[in-house]
Amino acid sequence: MRRDVSVVEVVFRREDVVPSRAAGRACAAVDVLRAGTTVACALGAGAAEVWLFREVAAARAARESFAGEALLAGERGGVAPDGFDLGNSPADFTPARVGGRAVFFTTTNGTAALADLAGGSFVAFAALVNAGAVGRALAGRIERHGEDVLVACAGTKGRYSVEDAFCAGLIVRAILDRLPGRAVELADGARIALDFAGVRRDPARVLAEGDHGRTLTSLGLGRDLVACAEADSLDVVPILRLEPLRLVAG
Amino acid sequence: MRRDVSVVEVVFRREDVVPSRAAGRACAAVDVLRAGTTVACALGAGAAEVWLFREVAAARAARESFAGEALLAGERGGVAPDGFDLGNSPADFTPARVGGRAVFFTTTNGTAALADLAGGSFVAFAALVNAGAVGRALAGRIERHGEDVLVACAGTKGRYSVEDAFCAGLIVRAILDRLPGRAVELADGARIALDFAGVRRDPARVLAEGDHGRTLTSLGLGRDLVACAEADSLDVVPILRLEPLRLVAG
Repeated sequence: MRRDVSVVEVVFRREDVVPSRAAGRACAAVDVLRAGTTVACALGAGAAEVWLFREVAAARAARESFAGEALLAGERGGVAPDGFDLGNSPADFTPARVGGRAVFFTTTNGTAALADLAGGSFVAFAALVNAGAVGRALAGRIERHGEDVLVACAGTKGRYSVEDAFCAGLIVRAILDRLPGRAVELADGARIALDFAGVRRDPARVLAEGDHGRTLTSLGLGRDLVACAEADSLDVVPILRLEPLRLVAG
Repeated sequence: MRRDVSVVEVVFRREDVVPSRAAGRACAAVDVLRAGTTVACALGAGAAEVWLFREVAAARAARESFAGEALLAGERGGVAPDGFDLGNSPADFTPARVGGRAVFFTTTNGTAALADLAGGSFVAFAALVNAGAVGRALAGRIERHGEDVLVACAGTKGRYSVEDAFCAGLIVRAILDRLPGRAVELADGARIALDFAGVRRDPARVLAEGDHGRTLTSLGLGRDLVACAEADSLDVVPILRLEPLRLVAG
């Protein structure tokens, strides 16, 4: 099934993912503010694994039934819920806090973005901090398996996010940089993202301009914007593992 | 997106699943001998949830890190591995043993069959014991969402299995019975399965004839064939839940 031309596609909000176009492709979900950054920082700091939950109650219940060393993390309205060990500030996920531990993390948008891509042959979670590493991993899938690529921005509440689009552009550029001379076809969304990232050189300014970034600043979380803007500071690629599979009575 | 004609497709071994044809569809993986039967019996007997693992070691490690009431189940070469609470004999999964508990269950083929369908909008795990219930659940998806349906037999080591094909036929029949007067288009595999099930009325004989059934009989597990042949004895539909999502460093 190795093909000579692989297509790279970008969508700017998760609602635009067509399931049949994710299936069998190498995929990345992008969520710069902040879950993608936080998860990359957690795994980069040596967390054993990260489990994502949409609901606070589900994360809490899972943490309680887990016998090992684990942390409960995430936020609602900008703050960590009662009894949580950590919020959603990437810089707090240090080796001393998370090293060797499982992290039970709640994020509605990031979890949904990854679930939409579950049919992919490879699914990574991306942010600016690891955009280059994710791009190289996707290039490796193109090189070894001739797969097509789908980069799906999470977006924010059904709308586009400048920071996710910018990150998608950096991922596309990293793919192209890794595969000089190989025929890679950019779908229109990928061309838009690549050129957008090309004219917007400063990640910190992109983050500060966007709707979501301004909201975080107004909540006093400006230091998180600084952490989320550190492009290519991490070499870690968080990868979705579909095993174990959970079955319940329907 | 509700369409007036839904297509029902059957494939006779999991290797024939095309990811883009599973994506966004209502799906069922069929594994009559024995994982599909055992999981239906476990949830039918009141198990809280079943977690599927390909590897014995992974199931064991997960069981150890689980603080709640849980059981380790599965087999290799027909017998339960060291330290397991249960094997893969459906009749052993009684309310007294599994009620209210999580079951950590190893099955290579069944886990792979379900993982192949992960992009589906709805994914059930089926066997003869719950073929009718699964068919009705799939019919409900057609009725409410106008989805197409994919029934994927697990098969055995890359080959077809008569018992899975027979079960797929019963599922197709249950779908049609539930939707009289509605336009359902059967793809060719679904027609083959339906007619095969129509001429083979006796599940016990189908199970006894197949390669896998004869192997189990030769291992002294003939009583499991009896349990697996009890068509429509359970009303339970084991459903794949993609949450929580597990991320690890790649």
